[in-house]
Amino acid sequence: MSTQPVQPTIETDFIFGESEPFQLVNGQTLSPVRLRYTIYGTLNQQRDNAILVCHALSGSARAGDWWPQLFGERGVFDLSRDCIICINAIGSCYGSTGPLDIDPATGRSYGASFPIVNIRDWVRAQSQLIDHLGITRLRAVIGGSIGGMQAIQWAIDFPERVARCIAVGAAPLSAMGIALNHLQRQAIMNDEKWNNGAYDQSDPPRRGLALAREIAMCSYKSSELFNERYGRNGNRNGEDPLRSLTDRYDISGYLDYQGERFHQRFDANSYLIISRAMDNFHPGLGYNSEIEALSRIQARVLLVGITSDLLFPAADVRNLAMRMGEAGVGVDYHELKSDHGHDAFLAEPEAVLPAIREVLHDAESFRAPLWDAGDIFTQPVVV
Amino acid sequence: MSTQPVQPTIETDFIFGESEPFQLVNGQTLSPVRLRYTIYGTLNQQRDNAILVCHALSGSARAGDWWPQLFGERGVFDLSRDCIICINAIGSCYGSTGPLDIDPATGRSYGASFPIVNIRDWVRAQSQLIDHLGITRLRAVIGGSIGGMQAIQWAIDFPERVARCIAVGAAPLSAMGIALNHLQRQAIMNDEKWNNGAYDQSDPPRRGLALAREIAMCSYKSSELFNERYGRNGNRNGEDPLRSLTDRYDISGYLDYQGERFHQRFDANSYLIISRAMDNFHPGLGYNSEIEALSRIQARVLLVGITSDLLFPAADVRNLAMRMGEAGVGVDYHELKSDHGHDAFLAEPEAVLPAIREVLHDAESFRAPLWDAGDIFTQPVVV
Repeated sequence: MSTQPVQPTIETDFIFGESEPFQLVNGQTLSPVRLRYTIYGTLNQQRDNAILVCHALSGSARAGDWWPQLFGERGVFDLSRDCIICINAIGSCYGSTGPLDIDPATGRSYGASFPIVNIRDWVRAQSQLIDHLGITRLRAVIGGSIGGMQAIQWAIDFPERVARCIAVGAAPLSAMGIALNHLQRQAIMNDEKWNNGAYDQSDPPRRGLALAREIAMCSYKSSELFNERYGRNGNRNGEDPLRSLTDRYDISGYLDYQGERFHQRFDANSYLIISRAMDNFHPGLGYNSEIEALSRIQARVLLVGITSDLLFPAADVRNLAMRMGEAGVGVDYHELKSDHGHDAFLAEPEAVLPAIREVLHDAESFRAPLWDAGDIFTQPVVV
Repeated sequence: MSTQPVQPTIETDFIFGESEPFQLVNGQTLSPVRLRYTIYGTLNQQRDNAILVCHALSGSARAGDWWPQLFGERGVFDLSRDCIICINAIGSCYGSTGPLDIDPATGRSYGASFPIVNIRDWVRAQSQLIDHLGITRLRAVIGGSIGGMQAIQWAIDFPERVARCIAVGAAPLSAMGIALNHLQRQAIMNDEKWNNGAYDQSDPPRRGLALAREIAMCSYKSSELFNERYGRNGNRNGEDPLRSLTDRYDISGYLDYQGERFHQRFDANSYLIISRAMDNFHPGLGYNSEIEALSRIQARVLLVGITSDLLFPAADVRNLAMRMGEAGVGVDYHELKSDHGHDAFLAEPEAVLPAIREVLHDAESFRAPLWDAGDIFTQPVVV
């Protein structure tokens, strides 16, 4: 199992929306839109070997960096045959248009004025890049967490263009999940340096962003894992929690370390925008009902729940699979047994690779009608 | 079932440790120590009708305010027979010595220099007040959450003085619980107004304390309750989370309201001190082993786990009951079925009242030897 980063064949930008502003679900527009994307392997002549990998909250277009286990001999992607595409989400700080960019309307960074983006916006922007690459139909769209939300949204919004949809640890967030995202955003906004989003990029709200990450980590991992790894031990550098407030437990030292690492690599305003996109995902959004939306799906779908997932409980993922089944979707549900919590899709995806491989390599259970170019832009797009 | 506050017969202070400083587990001392306490009902002539109620993190000595369901006809306390005593914890902001007090050594508020206090310190201080009241043996010590920790600590440290020990939703915190307390303290310490604990009491770290409370609320309640009450609804005042970052979901509006209410009534430094006391509770503390500590217990014990408790999972409480049983303790375990999470001990204790009543009114299963005054102060006291 490779856990070494895999290098992309291509890493570049696609820019659109210059003449015609890109309309967002929230009613605002973006112009232009830049999408940073990578390609691993090569698009074949028929352009029918493309698999789109979608990233989660803090991911980048470099899927080979953060999901290396899916590549290589023991993974599910064979770069001699598959063409893997990964596109950075709008609002991120990893290359696509986001809060750090200059707003052409003001000449200053968007900062907190960056509009709320929806997973539907991301997917529709991605579809424009997929058009640009001359790909009519994706062999698969695959992702975990927010990446899985995008895979599901692709299958709903562009049913003819998605042969297979694989989503791990993804479902509409529960009230508790929404609550935890809210607390994370509050942690950032409470930081005096956040300055209503107009912070100095050389002096950003580091402590707030670190705390947001630490709150999130508690929902990404599991109680079992924390007990096993950290228990009630004092911090490994010799701190004694019985002595003073500044002496920490080992779990606290771990969380602080994660917070510290994170604020060095991520932008606070991007965090706000993307965590709200996670909140707002719901399959029925933009349709008359959830069942109407799910009934559109033509892809063969695999949903994977993770037994110890606190953020997207396996029961919620299973329930979504059942609702898809009731809507006539060809859907499989698989449960990944892991103590790693939500992060299991990144930390130990091995257990779920056979299920993914089967869906990727087997025949599609739903064969879509021949694609008609005229259809793409007639999909309902904005709420 | 009464949920109207019940007024105490007496609410007053007991002061000690003026000539001989009170020694704390962390090695520091306090002098003097003031304990705010209440009495509901009347101590009888034999002084054998006293029940000590211990409060949780943000509680006060006024048990009749925060646990009214236990009083009255359909409760478990009968004030014509029982004498209920409740003592505010050292470090709190509700009357006992705490960070808001003047440190006689400096002439300024203790603030963040207030020493770490341990549940063992609280219990030993309480025992001095119980001595002062002329009570040799308590009919029961009862509490939920940190209150339950105190009840257990009483039964361990003063075995001859506790006939019954009733603890609801209490066990040593897991690594996840310690993590959540750490995040709450970080939220306070991240607030610029915290000022290393030396904040202006008229301009305290409100936002940090509010966020701490909001994080805590997520662990006090349950996912089921949040789904049922708030679901994925927009905030009830008409906010639309699809529109902007400042538009909230209903659950977020609820949490913000709880945070706002809390910072108006509680002190940030007290929060830090008491949440660390929660972290540090462990039955074995100060003894050679947990089993040695538990074997000391002579009280009849009732431990109650709450099915939806995220902070003190029922499995952890059940496990503690098993370890007590293995140590020879006469222990019952009862599970409170509730969607209210950890807060069920306050929100809907009705379901557990019959079990508490049975333990309070039945014979003690372990009859302690006749109490010998010379024994009290020979208990191991400091780690």
